[in-house]
Amino acid sequence: MDQDAKKQIATDWFRDLRDRICAQFEAIEAAGDTTQLGGESAGQFVRKSWNRDGGGGGEMSVMHGRIFEKVGVNISVVHGQFAPEFRKQIPGTNEDGDFWAAGISLVAHMQNPHVPAAHMNTRMIATTKSWFGGGGDLTPMYDMPEAAASFHAGLKGACDRHEAGDYEAYKKWCDEYFYLPHRDEPRGAGGIFYDQLDTGNWQGDLDFTKDVGTSFADTYCDIVRAHMDKSWDDDDRHNQLVRRGRYVEFNLLHDRGTIFGLKTGGNIEAILMSLPPEVRWP
Amino acid sequence: MDQDAKKQIATDWFRDLRDRICAQFEAIEAAGDTTQLGGESAGQFVRKSWNRDGGGGGEMSVMHGRIFEKVGVNISVVHGQFAPEFRKQIPGTNEDGDFWAAGISLVAHMQNPHVPAAHMNTRMIATTKSWFGGGGDLTPMYDMPEAAASFHAGLKGACDRHEAGDYEAYKKWCDEYFYLPHRDEPRGAGGIFYDQLDTGNWQGDLDFTKDVGTSFADTYCDIVRAHMDKSWDDDDRHNQLVRRGRYVEFNLLHDRGTIFGLKTGGNIEAILMSLPPEVRWP
Repeated sequence: MDQDAKKQIATDWFRDLRDRICAQFEAIEAAGDTTQLGGESAGQFVRKSWNRDGGGGGEMSVMHGRIFEKVGVNISVVHGQFAPEFRKQIPGTNEDGDFWAAGISLVAHMQNPHVPAAHMNTRMIATTKSWFGGGGDLTPMYDMPEAAASFHAGLKGACDRHEAGDYEAYKKWCDEYFYLPHRDEPRGAGGIFYDQLDTGNWQGDLDFTKDVGTSFADTYCDIVRAHMDKSWDDDDRHNQLVRRGRYVEFNLLHDRGTIFGLKTGGNIEAILMSLPPEVRWP
Repeated sequence: MDQDAKKQIATDWFRDLRDRICAQFEAIEAAGDTTQLGGESAGQFVRKSWNRDGGGGGEMSVMHGRIFEKVGVNISVVHGQFAPEFRKQIPGTNEDGDFWAAGISLVAHMQNPHVPAAHMNTRMIATTKSWFGGGGDLTPMYDMPEAAASFHAGLKGACDRHEAGDYEAYKKWCDEYFYLPHRDEPRGAGGIFYDQLDTGNWQGDLDFTKDVGTSFADTYCDIVRAHMDKSWDDDDRHNQLVRRGRYVEFNLLHDRGTIFGLKTGGNIEAILMSLPPEVRWP
């Protein structure tokens, strides 16, 4: 298969996954018990597309709902030239700075402090080389060992079903990546993280990446449903808003995707969509 | 005068200024009109000291009040060795990484959206060379030309009274520094910013730095008093919380002091004291 066909298949997949996840999340919104939600009506995703100076663009889908306080699902397909200072960090760009990248990125911040926040991102990148990367991680506001276990089990399932999947290695990578050194704290309960995946079997790598996306979504939806009707009080909400501060610190101080996007003139609204709707540093 | 005597004089001054400013802010708290404040009682500063691994320490003073939603005034005196990767950025450390630094740092986030937030910081640093630096800037949530003009007039006064002061140059430096390139926005209404000030007249440089501190405080107190009784509504508050998001973005993405502190193992609580008590990214 030639490179253009692979790019089209990956692009189509990220769009399909976006549609699938938005439908899953809207179904949860519609089913929500409104007792604690002041009779608020169910949220729906609003779409907005953007073009990138230099090539390509993307589509943001954002929902402000009664279960999902703020959830964004971005897809993008961009291409261009890496600036010389980035080339040494990116495989296959020593002699040619051309790149192409497509992906999906999701961050969910929930109304109920007993429902963990979550993040998922998968992508295909092509320079003179080509690879997949991605992962997902869960950020409970409390120690929630059962939710963490079911999240990890879902992603381990995706890893175990594919040659390209290596749960132990990707779990460790996630723990190391989603870590706040200035606080000596993990961002949450972890998950998996992988990058520069190119086993030589492109279809297999794609199939694994697809499974990561759907397994994340199915597992996370189960976790949301299991906890979204729990009651909470002002102290729980306060704790949630303080925990969200750590999320902001991680994304602005450490997250490579955020910093990379901001330094390469990406779409500000799409890049910072990951920031929580309400935060406290008391 | 020998270097030790200079260090002691500067250290004493930053402490005196801290005491003076805390008293000024507590007086404003006590005088506040409580009509819109739900009968909350006046805030008072709470002090907390910290020690730095590697040498020195500091004292945080934080007030959560009815006028000052969250205000922190930090003083610190630290010393140690710059890591080799920092030396090329710091004058006088090519052959000897020893440094000593003392300073005061203040950030005020206000309850009333019609009262601007403000920041001030002055410091003396000694390596094999020695210099002063600092400045102050105002962050109104709305376009407030009169408040901005009186703030600038106060700092211009300090500049004009001293050989070391150069208002036009320091104003420009401030505008360039407190700027969010990813949003193409200034952080606020500006102020002054200066660094590596060493005119050869140490006493003159100190006197200027002292005047920056007291002029900032007097001018800012006047601005707070002029606006703190204005009424506001939910839309004003929402706008304030969104504007505060820009403050967080600047401090975590761009502020050299914050990033420097976090990377050199400074006190997390003191460094991040500048972050607003409540923020929204809607």
